[in-house]
Parts: sequence; C-alpha cells; structure tokens
Amino acid sequence: MIYGITGNTQKEQLWKPVGELIRWMARQGLEVRLHPDVARGLVARGLLSDDEAAALTAHDLAAEVDLLLSFGGDGTLLQSAHLAGRRGTPVLGVNIGRMGFLADVEVEQVREAIRTIEAGDYHLEARMVLEAELEDGPVPELPWALNEFVIDRSGLAGLITIDVTVDGVSLTRYWADGLIFSTPTGSTAYSLSAGGPIVSPECEVVILTPIAPHTLTLRPIVLPASVEIEARVYTGGQPYVLAADGRSQLIHREGQRITIRRAEHTVNLVKLPGQHYFQTLRSKLMWGVR
Amino acid sequence: MIYGITGNTQKEQLWKPVGELIRWMARQGLEVRLHPDVARGLVARGLLSDDEAAALTAHDLAAEVDLLLSFGGDGTLLQSAHLAGRRGTPVLGVNIGRMGFLADVEVEQVREAIRTIEAGDYHLEARMVLEAELEDGPVPELPWALNEFVIDRSGLAGLITIDVTVDGVSLTRYWADGLIFSTPTGSTAYSLSAGGPIVSPECEVVILTPIAPHTLTLRPIVLPASVEIEARVYTGGQPYVLAADGRSQLIHREGQRITIRRAEHTVNLVKLPGQHYFQTLRSKLMWGVR
Amino acid sequence: MIYGITGNTQKEQLWKPVGELIRWMARQGLEVRLHPDVARGLVARGLLSDDEAAALTAHDLAAEVDLLLSFGGDGTLLQSAHLAGRRGTPVLGVNIGRMGFLADVEVEQVREAIRTIEAGDYHLEARMVLEAELEDGPVPELPWALNEFVIDRSGLAGLITIDVTVDGVSLTRYWADGLIFSTPTGSTAYSLSAGGPIVSPECEVVILTPIAPHTLTLRPIVLPASVEIEARVYTGGQPYVLAADGRSQLIHREGQRITIRRAEHTVNLVKLPGQHYFQTLRSKLMWGVR
Amino acid sequence: MIYGITGNTQKEQLWKPVGELIRWMARQGLEVRLHPDVARGLVARGLLSDDEAAALTAHDLAAEVDLLLSFGGDGTLLQSAHLAGRRGTPVLGVNIGRMGFLADVEVEQVREAIRTIEAGDYHLEARMVLEAELEDGPVPELPWALNEFVIDRSGLAGLITIDVTVDGVSLTRYWADGLIFSTPTGSTAYSLSAGGPIVSPECEVVILTPIAPHTLTLRPIVLPASVEIEARVYTGGQPYVLAADGRSQLIHREGQRITIRRAEHTVNLVKLPGQHYFQTLRSKLMWGVR
Repeated sequence: MIYGITGNTQKEQLWKPVGELIRWMARQGLEVRLHPDVARGLVARGLLSDDEAAALTAHDLAAEVDLLLSFGGDGTLLQSAHLAGRRGTPVLGVNIGRMGFLADVEVEQVREAIRTIEAGDYHLEARMVLEAELEDGPVPELPWALNEFVIDRSGLAGLITIDVTVDGVSLTRYWADGLIFSTPTGSTAYSLSAGGPIVSPECEVVILTPIAPHTLTLRPIVLPASVEIEARVYTGGQPYVLAADGRSQLIHREGQRITIRRAEHTVNLVKLPGQHYFQTLRSKLMWGVR
Repeated sequence: MIYGITGNTQKEQLWKPVGELIRWMARQGLEVRLHPDVARGLVARGLLSDDEAAALTAHDLAAEVDLLLSFGGDGTLLQSAHLAGRRGTPVLGVNIGRMGFLADVEVEQVREAIRTIEAGDYHLEARMVLEAELEDGPVPELPWALNEFVIDRSGLAGLITIDVTVDGVSLTRYWADGLIFSTPTGSTAYSLSAGGPIVSPECEVVILTPIAPHTLTLRPIVLPASVEIEARVYTGGQPYVLAADGRSQLIHREGQRITIRRAEHTVNLVKLPGQHYFQTLRSKLMWGVR
Repeated sequence: MIYGITGNTQKEQLWKPVGELIRWMARQGLEVRLHPDVARGLVARGLLSDDEAAALTAHDLAAEVDLLLSFGGDGTLLQSAHLAGRRGTPVLGVNIGRMGFLADVEVEQVREAIRTIEAGDYHLEARMVLEAELEDGPVPELPWALNEFVIDRSGLAGLITIDVTVDGVSLTRYWADGLIFSTPTGSTAYSLSAGGPIVSPECEVVILTPIAPHTLTLRPIVLPASVEIEARVYTGGQPYVLAADGRSQLIHREGQRITIRRAEHTVNLVKLPGQHYFQTLRSKLMWGVR
Repeated sequence: MIYGITGNTQKEQLWKPVGELIRWMARQGLEVRLHPDVARGLVARGLLSDDEAAALTAHDLAAEVDLLLSFGGDGTLLQSAHLAGRRGTPVLGVNIGRMGFLADVEVEQVREAIRTIEAGDYHLEARMVLEAELEDGPVPELPWALNEFVIDRSGLAGLITIDVTVDGVSLTRYWADGLIFSTPTGSTAYSLSAGGPIVSPECEVVILTPIAPHTLTLRPIVLPASVEIEARVYTGGQPYVLAADGRSQLIHREGQRITIRRAEHTVNLVKLPGQHYFQTLRSKLMWGVR
C-alpha cells in the first residue's frame, strides 16, 4: 500500500504532524508520496531535506498511490476527493481543527489508523456523487460534486426563478435565493442550513432544498438517485452562480439547460472500525444533545 | 377482472355515484362485489334491491376481487389498503371531496378509469409499508402502516423521552411530544406537518420526524428502508400512544422495545396514464403555487 | 426583607442546601418563612427541629414574605409564580439541576445573591402574563399563565380545528395538533419546540404558534400584547386539552369561546447584576454555539 | 388635498388607468401633480398633452402634495415610501398586478378610494422604519428601510461571520449566508422566506432572521424596537452586501461597525375602511388556506 499525503497548506498546524508522520512511516517501511505543495511547505520549514522532497514528491498524486491521507477539515477533504477524481482513489480524512463529518480521524490517531489499515481492518464507503452539465458545454470549474451543486443568485441581484423538471416531468418553479441539489453526504452541509433533512449516506437519493423560497409551501424534496434533473434559471438579465462543493462560477446565459444526474464514479472514503455516522452527527451537530 | 367496491359510508355523496356505477358495470358485463357496509347502505337508500345485494355482497372482499375501488379520501384509502392487507390486492382510490394524495381519480372519471383498466392501460405502484412489533407481543390494532407509525405522548402527559437505535447502533435520544416513523408515501401526511421533507414514493427510505422536539438540533433524518429500528419510550409512569395510519392505541408498559422495520408486503396502488406525483404535489399542497 | 422558601420537594438535592441556608440566614439575622411542604421535608430529614418548623412555617407564604426563593428548575419556578399569584410577590429562581431560563441563580451562589439583594443591588423584571376564560366559566385549574396556554388534541383524537379571531376580526382557521398562545417569557419553552421565534422578554407581544399544522403556510404570528383573542375548537365530538404552564385539563364542550388576553398582573422576577437574557440563551439553548 | 401620482413606469398596464384617473380628477376638481417620469410616459403615449404635462409635473413631488398615490406592487410602494422620505407624506398603494401587502387598493377601485379619502373616511398607519449607519459614514444608497436591512455574502463568497451586540451586550455570532434586520412591515417579505415569524405591524419590535445559518440552534429572535444593534461582518477579505429594501451595495471594509436602530420618522400608509391586515395575510400568503 502506497500512501499519498495532501492537506490544507494554509493551516500552520499541518506541518509538524505531517513531518513526524513521514519519519515514522519511513521507519515502519511504509511507502509515501507527497503532494507538491505539501513537499514544498515541509522543505520551507526545515522538516524535509531537498533530497527527500525530490524522492517523495508525486507528479500525479492520486495516480501514484493506493490511498490518500487528507489532512485538514471537510473543505480539504472535498478538495482531496476532487484530486482523487474519477479514478476513485480511497481517501482518509485526518482532521486538524474542529471535528468534521468527512475528516473523522483525529491527527493524534493517524499512526494507529495506518496500523489498522495495514492490518486490513477497514472498509471503503462508496459515496454517491452528482455531475452537472450546461447546455453550453461542460461545467468548467468542477463538473461533479460530492456534497452539492448550488444555483444561487449573485449577491447584488434579487430573487431568481428556477424551473425544474425531473425525468422530463415538470416538478415546480422555484422563486428563491437559490436551490441546492445535495447528495446524502452533502445533507449535513449547506442543505441542512437551508432547512433540508439529514440523510444517511447509504440512501440512494438526491435532495432538492430551496434557499429562502418566496413561497411558503416549497419544502425540501427527496428524489431517487436515478433521476435526471433539468433546471433553467431566469434572472432578468443578471448572471447567476453555479457552485460545486463550494467552488463558485458565474453563469451568464440565463434560460439555458443545466442537467444534473448521478455520476458513474463514487468517492471512496476509508472507514475504520468504531467510526459511526450517528456518532459523528451527535458530536458534530450536537444533534440531540441537551 | 373482478372489481370490489368499498368506501367511506359516512359520506352521503358516496351513494349515488356508487349506485350508478354498479348499474353501468352490469350493463358493461363487468363483475363487481360490494363491501357489506356498502351493500347495506345502498339497500337502505333504495339504490339496490335485497336480491341484488345478496348476489353482490362479498364475505371477504379483498380475497374475492382482483382490484379494489376505494371511494373516499386518503383516510378511506388507508382503510382500503388495510382491507387488502398482506394479500396485496390492487387498490384504486376514487376521490369524493377534496383531492387526495392517494385517492387521485375523481368520482366523475371513474367509468373512464375502468375502461382504461379493462384496456390494460395501467400500472401498479408497489408502495413500501412499515411493520411494528412490541416487546410484549404484536401490535393489536394495526401491525403495519402505509403512511406512518407515530409514538406520541397522550394528551394530558408532558414530554416523553424516546431512545432510538438503528441496526443496533444508538441513534439519539428524542425529548419531544412524539416521533413519526414515516414511509415515503406518508411523507406528505403527518410527517410534513411536523417539518419533515417530501419524499417521492420510489425512494427506498424511512423518515424519522420528531414532533415539537425540545432540542433545537433534532432535525428530521432519512434512513435506508433496510434498517431495523428499535425505540424505547419513557414517560415517568404515564401511558403513551402508538398510532398506525391514524389509528391510535395506548401502550401502558414504558421502556419496552418497539421494533419497526419494512414489511415484506407492499400496498399496490393502481395508477393510470397521466397521473403524476408531482402534479398531485402542486394541486394538493399548493406546492410552489404563488 | 422577609424571605420565603419554596421548592421542588421531589428532588433529593433540595434538602441539604436549603437546610444550610436557613442556618446561615439565622446567623445573619435574616428573616425566613418556609412553605409547609419544605418545612415537613426538612423535619423528616432531621435538618430542622419540630419547634423550628413550627416557628418558620408560613400559612400563606406569598402573603407573608417580601421575596420568594424558588429552589428547582423552570417548572418549579412556574409553580412558585402561581403561588405568588396576582399579589406579585417577587420571585428569585435558584437552580438545582440543569440551568434554566427562569431559575438562573445557581444553588452555590444563593448566599451571595441574598447579600446582593440585601445591599439593594437588584431589580425586578415585570413579566407579562396571559389569562384565559371559557365561555362556560373560569378556567378551573390555572386561569393565567406565565409561559403559555396550549389548546391541544387529546392523545387518541385526530387533528382539531381552531377558529381564531383577534379583536373581533377573523385571523384564520388552524387545522393542527394544537395551538400555543405564548408570552415572550414562554417563547423559549414549548413555542420554540413547535417552531416559534425567540422573543426577548421586554417585547409587548403574544405569539401564536401552531403545533404540526396540516397547512404548510401557517407560520407563527406575533401580535401586540393588547389584543383580545377568541378561539373556538372543533373536534368532532372528542374532548380536547387546555393547558396553562404545563398543567392540563380536558374541555368537553367543543365550539365554546375561549378568550385569551393579557392579565392585569405581572410575575416579578428578581434579577441580579450580571445576569443577562442573551447569556442565558447561549448557555441554555446552545444558541449560536458551534 | 393635493394628490401626487407616481408608479412603476416599467409596467405597460400603468398608463391607461393613470391617464383616465387624471381626466376624472380634473372633472371632479381635484388637484393632482405627477412624477416627472409618469408625466413623460403619458405624453409619449399621447395620453397627456405637452401643456398639461408642463402644468402638472412636480419638481419635488413629495413636498408638493398631501398624499402620494403609488401605482405598482410592493416594490413600487417601497420606492414611493423612499420618495416620501423623512417628510412622512402619506402613501396609498394602488395595486397593478398581483395583490401586494402594501399596495392593497386595486386599480379598479382607485376612484372609490379617492372619494372615500375626500370624505375623510381613512386613517394613517404609521409604520416603523429602521435606519443604518456605517462606522465609515452614512449608508450611501438607502440610509433607512421600511421592510428590512440585509447583510449578505456576495454571490461568489462563502459563509460570513456576523458578530451582533444589542445595546452594548453581546447577542451571538452568526455564521451564515446573511442576516436580516426586519421591521414588522418587512416580516412578510424576505424575513418570512428565511424562516422568520409573521409580525403584525402594530408590534414595536425588530426581527433578526439568519439566512441559512450553519448552526442549527440559531432561530429568529424578536427584540424591542427601542434597541440599538451593532453588527460587525468578517468575510476573510471579500466584500459583502448591505441591502436596504432590496437595494444592494457592496461594503469593502470588513469588521467595521454597522449600527441599526429605529428611525425617528415613520412611513405613513393610507388605510381605508374594510382593509384588514389578516385578510391580506390570507389572500396574499394563502395563509391558512387549504
């Protein structure tokens, strides 16, 4: 098993544990490759020599390793998942900072986690992914999302109108700030803030949650993951935002078809014994805590 | 195809259309059987002779027919579904009164609907059903539900505590007026009133929606339909209510295990061309109407 | 200043601090009177002699003292407020157990609180109170409420219909499990569980919050405290529940007028320096805590 | 009584009724002045001669008339209210298009409304107004709002942090898309979409409603209208949006103090007999409609 290391290079608390882990892995005879940004940062802080960096830096990290260690929070894990891409390289989220939904191994426990993985005592959770396509062509920034796609008015514009059809049948017209198309994985992220339900990751569904809908009756709706959704946005001449996993882009042509469907690939999260989704709900959301 | 007729005998507008339909079906050479209460009501109103009633009344309606026509609203359709029982006799809801989610053929269209069925131009929607079991034994009133099971404080008692485990793993502790275990079919009924999401009927999930939870963080959660749920209710000595599809019973022993899981059978709704769930959402919930 | 002591006699942790406080107050030369149940409980536990009990027990506690110390949680404070009654005797909530909204002095701090009061360093918060009247006569159990009145279906009945008029003008028809008429003080209690807003206690308003309304558009509404509200409940022959501050009673005659308006008296809460409502929100509701 | 006419000049259905009304008012001997844009539009459509336009066009409409007739919807009425400004000129909303909350006289009824006003059979509703001030100086676009101020992330940015103090006491830290500071009048506008309560216009309160808060416990809060609110926004370097009654502007310096308080002036709406707020709720929001 070759391990790849990536992480949130903005966080100062990244460097020391990663530096130590690399030494420890070398002593254990475990193979490791580094994301170029991680290698550079370690060298800059004197935690890695230039020679070591040259030996360990990957050109295409996700292609060269069997498992990605993602050091950071949920935002970093989303980036690592996009780095793994359609290749499906398994990802283990190592949390630095506040506990995350996706990054659920604490940094202090990473050696123990690697030992457990080496012992084969883990499984992969294949998380469903959505992909989107514009009538004008592919979505340039991020063509797929582990958490959600969001159609959103841009900040200075007013309400937008979003016509949605599902498998060719008209669903409804949303008049709102925006509309979230969420996977079960994303149900505890933005969709929850906008009033959507919590959906456990094994459910084969997609959730449509409106943001500040002008119409009181527009509740979140849960649809089978097999559907093909088409949305058309009308803004009265303003550009609007299409965001995937938090990365936003402006769309200028209104009325064009946006198609959203389940992608063929999945994001494969490494799960260790004793990690449980409900436990994460309780500790992260204070769900049910009094 | 033998048709069975059942309905809401409390509604005066039941009788005339049913009486006329029976004559019309006789003229068409279509076989029909009547629920005893329906037969009695028709005779009492002079719409059927004693001889005809004797010939048409069924002893065990759901066993003797190929398709049940349920005249009434959604409440009547739930009763017809329970009449069909585990046998799975298909049910067509014929609406008298306000439009329903389940009873979605209008009474004026019933002849046309029967012609369409005779032409084979229909399909069955197999709706998932939940079943419940008490540690003390089977649930006496209604052991399964098409819409939902509800655990509820009785009217004069205070908040109740409900401990829930899912497949043996602790989910959370609810401190609330009650807790709804809803099917997708039930998602537009009581669960929606309590803040649950709309879930389209093809989704293979169960929805847990708390009623007036004391804890702000307790949002509705959607789980895969394959789970086995255990609930234990603590009330401080008061009885509490267990309701299935709106039929309530008092449970006196607190702390006993209530097991809820997907039933093996389904309720089979007859769907005709042109009927669409999203259309019903819009017309019934004024969903998205401005 | 004569102090009265009342409290939750169901809680074993009541007795020791109260016994010690009485001794301490005697040493300080502070006058104290005891609720009969408190006196009896102290004697039974050997924390007070019969003679002392005879000397300190009040016949009509709220009439004989200048300030009530209420040992317990929010439920106990509601009872103490009703003990103070229309007389308006100031009440200080001393919390034993989980922190409360109303009982916001911790039991360890009670001596310091009394010293502060003796130094005159406190103020009274006059909390608005609602009163209710039935067409058939006064509400037998509790004619007024510091938190809320609730109209509720009884446990085994279905939805109820509640027609509401405000100052003689039709407001709307609720079709729901129930309807809460809350004061600002009650806004963080049951009304919040049912989806109502938090309303700071100085606001001169009453909040109407439906419980599980069948109609998606029925949001909570905030009205001026000066209004007179009339409600009529229709149940189809079932009794229904009218509760005041958590004490429930069955009402049998449906359709009768229930009048709810601001009472002339207030409940006067003793507030000490450094206690702040927003702080209580954060610590009690984990409001805004991440 | 001199009447001023202003309106939504984007709507083609404005011109004919306004042209006819001017003729009718002339015949009745009623004095009228026109907003320059309205005069120009009427001339361009041949509904007014150049001479008439010259005679009727106002230089400063709100200063020259006793009452403003605002032809349009709620958006137009907000503009007319800002045209009336701190002067407090009474405004009557004449609705063209969908029924509005604020514009509640239908265009067909405008002559009857004017007769009623001439007979003195009307009253003014003084609607409370909020004003805002930046630490860096006055808010350039709109310094006060009849409906609401909104602090909002700009479209491409992520969540923003908003620290709020009330009368110098820390309320909480919002981590959300935005935060709405609403008057009672605005409670049925954007605040309602974001989950806020309906607040009847006589209530002397301000409502803080978060937009898609990341924290589940952050419910809307209602505060007395007398408070002074300070907000500081942190975005990590992005500009953010401050909007007043729907008019948006970008604020570039994060962390600066934004002060929001009740303004000294009010917007004075002309109300005719038979118009009732609850009726508008029912017809506009379908509030309580089944």
